[in-house]
Amino acid sequence: MAALWRNRYAQRNQRMGRSVIRELLKFTMQPDIISFAGGLPAPEVFPLAEVQEAACRVLAERGAAALQYGPTEGYQPLREFICHQMYGYGVKAEPGNVVITSGSQQALDLIGKLLINAGDRVLVEEPTYLGALQAWNAYQAEYATVTSDDCGLRTDLLEEGLRVGPKFMYVLPNFQNPAGTTLPLDRRLELVRLSHKYGIPIVEDDPYGALRYEGEHVSPVLALDADFQTAEGLAGRGFEEGNVIYLGTFSKTLAPGLRLGWVAAPVEVIEQLVMVKQGADLHTSSLDQMLAYEIVKDGFLDQHIRIIRQLYGERRDVMLSSLARHFPAECSWTHPEGGLFLWARAPEWLDTAELLKEAVKRKVAYVPGFAFYPNPTHGRNAMRLNFSNAQPAQIEEGIRRLGVLLKETIDARPFVENKTVGADITYKPIARL
Amino acid sequence: MAALWRNRYAQRNQRMGRSVIRELLKFTMQPDIISFAGGLPAPEVFPLAEVQEAACRVLAERGAAALQYGPTEGYQPLREFICHQMYGYGVKAEPGNVVITSGSQQALDLIGKLLINAGDRVLVEEPTYLGALQAWNAYQAEYATVTSDDCGLRTDLLEEGLRVGPKFMYVLPNFQNPAGTTLPLDRRLELVRLSHKYGIPIVEDDPYGALRYEGEHVSPVLALDADFQTAEGLAGRGFEEGNVIYLGTFSKTLAPGLRLGWVAAPVEVIEQLVMVKQGADLHTSSLDQMLAYEIVKDGFLDQHIRIIRQLYGERRDVMLSSLARHFPAECSWTHPEGGLFLWARAPEWLDTAELLKEAVKRKVAYVPGFAFYPNPTHGRNAMRLNFSNAQPAQIEEGIRRLGVLLKETIDARPFVENKTVGADITYKPIARL
Repeated sequence: MAALWRNRYAQRNQRMGRSVIRELLKFTMQPDIISFAGGLPAPEVFPLAEVQEAACRVLAERGAAALQYGPTEGYQPLREFICHQMYGYGVKAEPGNVVITSGSQQALDLIGKLLINAGDRVLVEEPTYLGALQAWNAYQAEYATVTSDDCGLRTDLLEEGLRVGPKFMYVLPNFQNPAGTTLPLDRRLELVRLSHKYGIPIVEDDPYGALRYEGEHVSPVLALDADFQTAEGLAGRGFEEGNVIYLGTFSKTLAPGLRLGWVAAPVEVIEQLVMVKQGADLHTSSLDQMLAYEIVKDGFLDQHIRIIRQLYGERRDVMLSSLARHFPAECSWTHPEGGLFLWARAPEWLDTAELLKEAVKRKVAYVPGFAFYPNPTHGRNAMRLNFSNAQPAQIEEGIRRLGVLLKETIDARPFVENKTVGADITYKPIARL
Repeated sequence: MAALWRNRYAQRNQRMGRSVIRELLKFTMQPDIISFAGGLPAPEVFPLAEVQEAACRVLAERGAAALQYGPTEGYQPLREFICHQMYGYGVKAEPGNVVITSGSQQALDLIGKLLINAGDRVLVEEPTYLGALQAWNAYQAEYATVTSDDCGLRTDLLEEGLRVGPKFMYVLPNFQNPAGTTLPLDRRLELVRLSHKYGIPIVEDDPYGALRYEGEHVSPVLALDADFQTAEGLAGRGFEEGNVIYLGTFSKTLAPGLRLGWVAAPVEVIEQLVMVKQGADLHTSSLDQMLAYEIVKDGFLDQHIRIIRQLYGERRDVMLSSLARHFPAECSWTHPEGGLFLWARAPEWLDTAELLKEAVKRKVAYVPGFAFYPNPTHGRNAMRLNFSNAQPAQIEEGIRRLGVLLKETIDARPFVENKTVGADITYKPIARL
């Protein structure tokens, strides 16, 4: 009968599995493992006392509303708060420009449902966020990819990708997941310019924007696009005329368990997303929305983000110095100015998916790089390392174990790349770990 | 630019709007209106004190887990509780047979995503749940419809619908939304038999099953299907071999604002739904799941459901007696044994969508019948009336106002149907309200 069910599934599910990754990640769930695999915030910075107080107040004062059905577009005071918050980043949004989603993941799903016909191309950076690929594979998206470097998306290579006519571009400009890179202002401006030149909208995913540990804030693409509109003399209606759909979330600044994200976009797009969301889950938890608002309404978030920055910044530094100490010279890694992740590269011939099996035996885990590419033959030698969740001493120890493993693997290779650049040596494929 | 965005939307959204209904329902949101339009539980029965206590305990004892990312399949103790609860209805499910969803609406969306290719037929009762149509229109479903009577789906007419090869059947056997009808045991058994004969699975949506005010409990189709398997000597693995995907929810027994539902189905199907859900929202709110479990774990639900039954049963009775008192003789209505809704019919010529405009002026609202049909030219003379949300005195007054309006409308018709069965009178279309 199981086989019978399998015959019933829609075509779109044939690419949805990515079960290789699920299987790999199952190993990383063991309790005694040092895991750099997840994207989990540190539980130490969860605002437990504030959630408790908020729960008491909300349930005492507005309990019936907190437990009742609510509007699909979201809790109005929270939408207003989000506008206020984004104003600080130069975005002039009204509540009608915002829909609350059940985490950013739902925003990705709703955008896919709204925009993607089977076979439509989506232009993504390589590497890109795994969850976005997962959401859009379900709508049978195809992908056009553009290479990244240590400053993020190579906008100088973008036009080629745009000429194939993608439905939209997907970018994570701040502290990218997985690469940890940040797109500089000049590339953001070029992105906006090309978006208008080719009439291709931008989906800007910004879950970590507030978590910067060094360097200067760079304006979100959403704000730059609105400036561009104004500069071009287009109506002066800010991003109402814009080309950008912006995704934000409370998962990294408040708590991911509440599943609260949002989309900011022209009213026209928000109205469509609200209809799509109505069919998807009616609305996001009333209680969670009201709790979040109760916590953040009086300025808590700004002071709380300072605490998170402090803690994660320290952990990033510990990971960077551990990498310098323990990783072999053949490896390299990015230097993230914020966020939760960095991206390490082993020599080209080394397969990090294979390596993970041995890493897990040594009680340390990461996500192998291929998971972040539409084409899983890419990124085979890379790994994503999360530095927000583990304690500093664990980070040091975990990176040491990984470094030892990488060293052993590299040393065990009979003929390393720069030695094969000889005359008489035949290349032999190495034994897999 | 708004026009530009419109050109970007995927084909699936062309049928998603149903904006006529959204527009109509906006009118029904006025605060001074007596609304029978929503499907809102009575806030009087929200377990506010219990949610407060649970929030304190959960956040104090397991706060870090409640605010952290959680597994896509749901909070394990809650899955176990659901199995325990369903056992009382003759369903032998293990936690692996259950995935927690963000309300039943998400379950409908995930099922659509898993099963429906564009153009696939779904067999539905007429009338059927509006939200299911909304969810599946997004996957470009077509519909095969089977007529209902006051006992629900006409299983004697089912084979014709099954012969067109629908992907699955969708039924609401208990206190159907919108009709308030309950499918008797013999029809359920026939449904199961035909499901196996034609190899067409059943999606059983059961949001109200626990809310019975009179009559005897009838086994869910899920349990009857497992019995059928056993009787046919099929492996004895209960519904592991089964043809049914069952949907349950805490929205009507606990609180809808928490957005907590579940799917029970063979493990094979649940594993697929979990992958689909991962792309849709990662997981349902950890806090809400843990709150719900904390409230229900020690038997609270059974005693609480008794209170809800008492209150809603009284309100149903008030609505039934008000209808008998105030509705004109030309109208008829169903007698629901449970649930939240009843279904009233005006004379064939009367359009309840038109009537609603005048009803709203008189500060009373309902959902016009056409909203519950894939083909909106059907059900034009019917209306769905909710009896759970309004106070008894309001129910009486609202039904009185509706009754007066119906009477005026019927009386104002120049030539009523039974008079036109004459010789010399030409039928003239009536003026719309």
